[in-house]
Amino acid sequence: MPDKIAIPRTLYWDDNALTILDQTALPERVSYEKQTGIKQVWESIHALKVRGAPAIGVAAAYGALTGLFANLALPVNEFRELFIEQANYINTSRPTAVNLSRSINIMATLAKSSKATSAKQLYDELVACAKTIHNEDIEMCRKIGEVGAPLIKDNCTIHTHCNAGALATSGIGTALAPMYVAHENGIKFKVYADETRPLLQGGRLTAWELHQSGIDVALICDNMVADVFSRGKVNLSIVGCDRVAANGDTANKIGTLGVAIIAKRYNVPFYVACPSSTIDFNIASGAEIPIEERDGHEISKLFNTYNPAFDVTPNELITGFITEKGTIMPPFAVNLKLLRH
Amino acid sequence: MPDKIAIPRTLYWDDNALTILDQTALPERVSYEKQTGIKQVWESIHALKVRGAPAIGVAAAYGALTGLFANLALPVNEFRELFIEQANYINTSRPTAVNLSRSINIMATLAKSSKATSAKQLYDELVACAKTIHNEDIEMCRKIGEVGAPLIKDNCTIHTHCNAGALATSGIGTALAPMYVAHENGIKFKVYADETRPLLQGGRLTAWELHQSGIDVALICDNMVADVFSRGKVNLSIVGCDRVAANGDTANKIGTLGVAIIAKRYNVPFYVACPSSTIDFNIASGAEIPIEERDGHEISKLFNTYNPAFDVTPNELITGFITEKGTIMPPFAVNLKLLRH
Repeated sequence: MPDKIAIPRTLYWDDNALTILDQTALPERVSYEKQTGIKQVWESIHALKVRGAPAIGVAAAYGALTGLFANLALPVNEFRELFIEQANYINTSRPTAVNLSRSINIMATLAKSSKATSAKQLYDELVACAKTIHNEDIEMCRKIGEVGAPLIKDNCTIHTHCNAGALATSGIGTALAPMYVAHENGIKFKVYADETRPLLQGGRLTAWELHQSGIDVALICDNMVADVFSRGKVNLSIVGCDRVAANGDTANKIGTLGVAIIAKRYNVPFYVACPSSTIDFNIASGAEIPIEERDGHEISKLFNTYNPAFDVTPNELITGFITEKGTIMPPFAVNLKLLRH
Repeated sequence: MPDKIAIPRTLYWDDNALTILDQTALPERVSYEKQTGIKQVWESIHALKVRGAPAIGVAAAYGALTGLFANLALPVNEFRELFIEQANYINTSRPTAVNLSRSINIMATLAKSSKATSAKQLYDELVACAKTIHNEDIEMCRKIGEVGAPLIKDNCTIHTHCNAGALATSGIGTALAPMYVAHENGIKFKVYADETRPLLQGGRLTAWELHQSGIDVALICDNMVADVFSRGKVNLSIVGCDRVAANGDTANKIGTLGVAIIAKRYNVPFYVACPSSTIDFNIASGAEIPIEERDGHEISKLFNTYNPAFDVTPNELITGFITEKGTIMPPFAVNLKLLRH
């Protein structure tokens, strides 16, 4: 959970169930929802009640266990099959983030290779595995924060897009982690947060969590990025990401590509903060990353719409990757391999 | 009024009063408001009930006459002073668009130089002058449409930002005028309209008026521009403008600068459509154009915000200007002078 940061927990496992903070209700309402059925978990991830690639990864690990506590009387093989079925189902809830399928794969691999002789024993192993994924996420966020914090100088101004904050992880975030660590270290800085249409993750979540933590944040519309950059108001942009190809091309929330192009034009360093697990070495370039197209009703109920949820930023627009293992600079096709897991 | 285009009139003068279509209620409600007091006119322009540089110019000319019909018994000099006072007041309602002050200057110059010997005579001259400004706007739109239409080829896709359509003028628009003329000529094409936060002029107005006219329009969020351009989905971008400096630097709705930078990156032609009256030869470059910063409540009632209403696009990002006198290509500092009025 976020250490020293004054914001609620994104999710937790208690009483053999996953409970999530419903982020669609923020900032108006801080509301926790216990997940009691596997369809509810799928819907919670799909509807972005829990969102952000790392948080989805943790939610999927716990979520795939939903309801299984009631089935501990099953023979271990039937129990295993039931778990695999639930895990495969959760794996279909969002297509772009690699963390989701990575968590599911870790859990499913354990289920298949486990020597457990009872459902109870297998269940305990799977819960322990999910908790490890959870703890690794918390630790990973903290490390990203420590790696990125030195980029943040006193009195500088930082730009960010969407929400790659504490709410997107089970720790202190990815893109926002360096800001939280710098803030803890007494560095004074200001943040411009894009509101991030259509679902306003920046306006609802980033502005809210930074504000809660006492960081000076100003909310701008997505189309104001070029204006603030052109006026020399921004020293640094840090965004999160959902998947990085082996060459560094990066899929992240729709609008990231535009920010990167504009940052390049004004020579503003543009960093992607991510756990090294977000790098998908099976994918050579951004062209192979699947992009989710969401329901047009998110934009308007009145007209035709086109509503891609992510875009892909070519590697040449990215200054560096801030990861828990250090900052990776170009050439990315070579240097990202240092993070190979 | 828009000829052959199936959309309501933006404004009209009848019964010695200006009546405007309240664009803040669109697309939910088509509501006309008769302007009965000079403060109401100021507020209508300031609150964007009537908006778009050319429409504001026409509204200001008529609007400055509001209530004067009740004062025709005044001595001509008192009547003249009253008019000048009203005209100066209306001139303060929006700072960026040059059309507003241009209309007011034309009307005020007439008032000062008129040889009228009665208030009634001066009033009639001023009403006639406002009607001339109105008719010139209708004609100007049609000519911009005819100049720009050849850029629109069968099966092409056009992008536009904000609303520089019929609703922004008293005719068929500026940026949308070439689309309407091409549509009348039977050309098939598709339009991507940015929703244009914070006030959603694209989502509420452009999508609505193009849809009303039977043009195929898809609404996107502002942060999706880079995505659609990067996918090669767009052949051409046309935007309107509020003021053009002598070197071609162009002030237009916030977000235009970002579109221009992105268009340049993907080699998509980026045209500004405007009446030649929008070019302000008194201003050497964009740095001198005053930019309105509007109330942060337009973005959010919860957080600090930064809410500039316009940005300035440097001339090197602009492919050409589509004006009623023809298309102007670089070098702009030289070629724009051909339009000197």
